[in-house]
Parts: sequence; structure tokens; C-alpha cells
Amino acid sequence: MTFAQRLEKTAARLDARLDGLLGGNGGDAGTIRAKPAGAIPDRLQPDRLRQAMRYAALGGGKRIRPFLVIESAALFGPGADAALDAAAAIECMHCYSLAHDDLPAMDNDSMRRGRPTVWKAYDEWTAILAGDALQALAFEILSRSSTHPDASIRADLILALARASGAGGMAGGQALDLAAEKLKDPDVLDAATISRLQAMKTGALITCACEMGAILGRANNDERTALKSYGDALGRAFQIADDLLDAEGDAQTVGKAVAKDAAQGKATLVSLLGIEAARRKLSEIEGEAIAVLSIFGARAAVLRETAAFVVNRKA
Amino acid sequence: MTFAQRLEKTAARLDARLDGLLGGNGGDAGTIRAKPAGAIPDRLQPDRLRQAMRYAALGGGKRIRPFLVIESAALFGPGADAALDAAAAIECMHCYSLAHDDLPAMDNDSMRRGRPTVWKAYDEWTAILAGDALQALAFEILSRSSTHPDASIRADLILALARASGAGGMAGGQALDLAAEKLKDPDVLDAATISRLQAMKTGALITCACEMGAILGRANNDERTALKSYGDALGRAFQIADDLLDAEGDAQTVGKAVAKDAAQGKATLVSLLGIEAARRKLSEIEGEAIAVLSIFGARAAVLRETAAFVVNRKA
Repeated sequence: MTFAQRLEKTAARLDARLDGLLGGNGGDAGTIRAKPAGAIPDRLQPDRLRQAMRYAALGGGKRIRPFLVIESAALFGPGADAALDAAAAIECMHCYSLAHDDLPAMDNDSMRRGRPTVWKAYDEWTAILAGDALQALAFEILSRSSTHPDASIRADLILALARASGAGGMAGGQALDLAAEKLKDPDVLDAATISRLQAMKTGALITCACEMGAILGRANNDERTALKSYGDALGRAFQIADDLLDAEGDAQTVGKAVAKDAAQGKATLVSLLGIEAARRKLSEIEGEAIAVLSIFGARAAVLRETAAFVVNRKA
Repeated sequence: MTFAQRLEKTAARLDARLDGLLGGNGGDAGTIRAKPAGAIPDRLQPDRLRQAMRYAALGGGKRIRPFLVIESAALFGPGADAALDAAAAIECMHCYSLAHDDLPAMDNDSMRRGRPTVWKAYDEWTAILAGDALQALAFEILSRSSTHPDASIRADLILALARASGAGGMAGGQALDLAAEKLKDPDVLDAATISRLQAMKTGALITCACEMGAILGRANNDERTALKSYGDALGRAFQIADDLLDAEGDAQTVGKAVAKDAAQGKATLVSLLGIEAARRKLSEIEGEAIAVLSIFGARAAVLRETAAFVVNRKA
């Protein structure tokens, strides 16, 4: 099985599980169909909101965060199934953030993955509430004993995900990003601050995915630290590769991408460092990511391939 | 100590604890100042977002949900301190929902508790992100061992809160409410559906507060069921009292309140049943709430007073 096939296979399994968790016919709908506090009957569960949540969460994507949870956990044992619900939870979190980031008041994006964004397909209030409910669902999934029989593992997973996604992580990074763009905050526009902004906005959740694998695998401290460092490097590589794709996608019309970034008030590491230096940086980070995996020896082959995939991805 | 004094005293303790949890100088700022996943330095924690979270969470209010957590837990032992962090978590959840509900795309409210709403005081994107980060903080608080040393208690608290606030609870109720108002969904406008909508939108979190007290107190099944039934009744009473205050506040200019509700497309139980029938219903529910407390005998005196307070409140 090639790496691409492995990634696709995991994405398909994850999609089927998410479908079940979101009340589809394809699987276990325990969470969604369970009576909430207050004994509200099933028929009152608001269909339109549920549909919007499904639209937000089942819209495709490479499912790289769930893949990292599963492959990090797999270092410590065979149980990919045991990691599947935790993987679904982090993807709910990621998808809620996309639904909110796309809102008119935020990035004001109409299209994502070739489809209308959630607020375009429904409306703004439904997109806000669908995001809110997906965040709650992420924590609901992680707190269920079916996700892991050991409550201390579940609490540890929840702590990691909550920290990665709150004011010190994903939400805080998005706030900094918008501060640069909308408030023209000059403090956000140097390379060091952009790096940290991105570490919060996208890096924290990618790092968290690897850490969740460590928690599920009952990793020792060294192993957990290694997986967090790997995730941190991967997150940085992910962002630079993203910026490079943007810049080079427009390479035929030289300078256009940079001009567009500048017009949006959006500095990136690539626009600040230049393409060549950014490429060197990317390859340096790939080396870092692979180096920290040495503690796992041959077991970490898939995670090494993942680093190469992130660095070299074409889309 | 009168009931009003007890409620105020608890609100003051809760405010001080929230101040600490949100990084103020007034207390333990462990959560906020702790390094998030990815080792992002403290100085990068986005101040403006944090300020907006503080604005949203420290804006006053009776703190009735935290009070219910603490007093329900107190049935089973003396430890009000042990319930304080869990109480702060549910208040973060409540305050995030207010910040989002007030948004232009939702209820479009400019003022709350005599101050500009979060989006008016900051802007829409900051209000969305502050709400998102407050939700994450609620779950972060509940997952910390300092909130409760037993991880299975923490996981149970998280499950209850996540269910009460997601698509089957608070977020779902708000979606139904907006469906009635914005989509003019006729299915939402009969008395039975309005009752259920309100049970989700406001009732689920009030019920959850009582259930969290039961969880913290390691209540047996009968006790937990009794506290949930009490919370359910209290939530219904809360809403009818609210609607009555609205209707009777305008009683001098007869019919005006009803006309306003109708103009907004907003049916309430009071507008559907009439003031007299709504009052009878309210007193019936108060009786229900008090009856289910009989299992706790004299210990439940404060919860009985709470029911009377909710029914008779003037603001």
C-alpha cells in the first residue's frame, strides 16, 4: 500500500465514522440520537442544524489530523480502531474552525473544497451554531467511555484538545491573524510573530493530533515530547508548504501572488523570506521532524513518510 | 443570611474565580498562563481576544447556573470550594452562548446588562472567537485535575455539559428559535414545540447545572434523577417567569407586549396561553420542583428557596 493509499483509506474510515457520529445511516448514531440532558425527544433534535453540521464535517479533505492521531497511536500498538473516535473528535474541532473562519465577519470566504462554504450553503447564524455544536460534539465524543475505557486517558485527551483550540491555540491564532488583517496591527507582521501566529492557528491542532496519539498509546514522557516536537515541526512545514503553493501557483505571472498578499495586508513567511529561503527552511524543518522520530526507530516509517508528504504536497 | 445574600455571596466568589481563570491578577491564572500545546510563549497569547473573553464572562449577572452547581453539590457534603471550578466552567459556557446569541447574524442585540454587547464593544469576529475560546476554556477547566481529583468524575461532568450545550441542547434550541423567527418555520410556533425549544435553549444548561452538582456529590441514581427533574422544572419556570416579566412590564399599555412579540414573529407560552394561565402553570411547576426535592429532606432548603426565587423574581 502506498502512502497515498494509506491516507485515503484512513480518510474513508474516518468519514464513515463521522457519518455515524453525526447521526447518518451509515453507522452508530449513539451520540446524536442519545437523549440530551432534560430528556428532549429525538424528533425535536433540530434537523437543519444537524444537516449543517454534517455539511461542515463531511465535506471531504485529506483528514490529516485524524491520520496523525491514528498513526501516532499506532506506534504503541495495533489499535487503529481504538483511536478512531478520538480522531473523529479532532476533525470535528478542525471543521468547526473552518465553518467559523469562512464567515463574512472573519475571512469572508464563499467557496471551500469546490463547494459553497457553510454560511453560503445555509446562512450565517446556522454556520455559527453548527460550528458551536461541532465543538461541543468533539468534547462529547472524547468524554464517552466508548472512545476509551480509561477516564484519565479521556480527561487527558480533552485537556490537550481544549488547550490547543482555545485562546492560547487555534482561536488565539485566528484572532492574531485577523488583527494583522483587519486592525493592521504592526506587531503581527514580522517573521517571528507570523511564525508564532501560525504555530497557534494551525500548528497547535496538528501538534495536538500527535499528542493525542501519544496519550492513547500511554507514551512515556520522552515519547510524548518527541511526538509533540514532531507535530510542531509538521505544523510549521504544513504552513510554509501552503504559502509556497500559493506563491508558486502564481509563478507564471511573477510577483502577482506577492502583490495580492500585500493588498490583503497578509504577510507570509514566503513573502517575507523569499521563495528560495522558504524552500531551504522547509527542508530544514523536514529534517527536524524526521530527527525527533529516531526514538521510535523503524516503527515510525509512516510518520516519516507523512513529513515528506506534507513538505512535497502539490495541493 | 437571606437567600438574596447567599446568591450574591456565591456570585462574588464565582466572579473572583472566573477572574483568576481568565488570567486576571485576582487569583490563580494557571489555565490561561500555562503554555498551550506547541510551546507558544506567554507574550504571544493574544491580549485583545483575552480581554474580550473577560468582558464577556465578567459582565455581571446573577450567576444562577454556578449557584445551582454549588448548592446541588452541597446536598452531598460541605465542599462548595470543590464545586467552584465546575461552576465557573458552566458559566463560561453560558457566557459564550450570550456573546454568540447577541451577534448581528443571530439576535442582533446591542446592549446586555446595561453595557454594549461583546460584538458592539469589540467587533463581530472578536465576539465569535471570544465565544469559541470560552467554550474551549469551559472544557479545559473541567478536564483539569485541580477541578476534581477523580478523572471519571471529570469525564462525567464533561459529557453532561457537552450534551447540554450541543445540537441536542443549547445550540439546537437557539437554532430552533431562530428558525421560528428568521425562517418563519410554522412547526416551531405551537405551545408544545415552544416548550421543547425552551427546554433545549435555556433548560438544558440549567438542568445540567443541577446534574453537575449530582456528579460532584457522587449522587446515586435516584438522587441524580431527582436533581435533573428539579433542574428541568426550574428551567421551565425560569422561562415562563421571563416571559411574564416581559408581558407584565408592558401591562400599563395593554396588548403592546403581545403586539411586539407578534411583530417579531416570536410566540411565547405567555402570548399563547395568556397571562393568567401562564401564572397558574408557573405555580404548578414550582410545586413540581419542590416535590422532587423531597428525597433530600431538610437538606434541600436552599434549592426550595431557589425555586421560589426563580418563580417570583422581579428582574
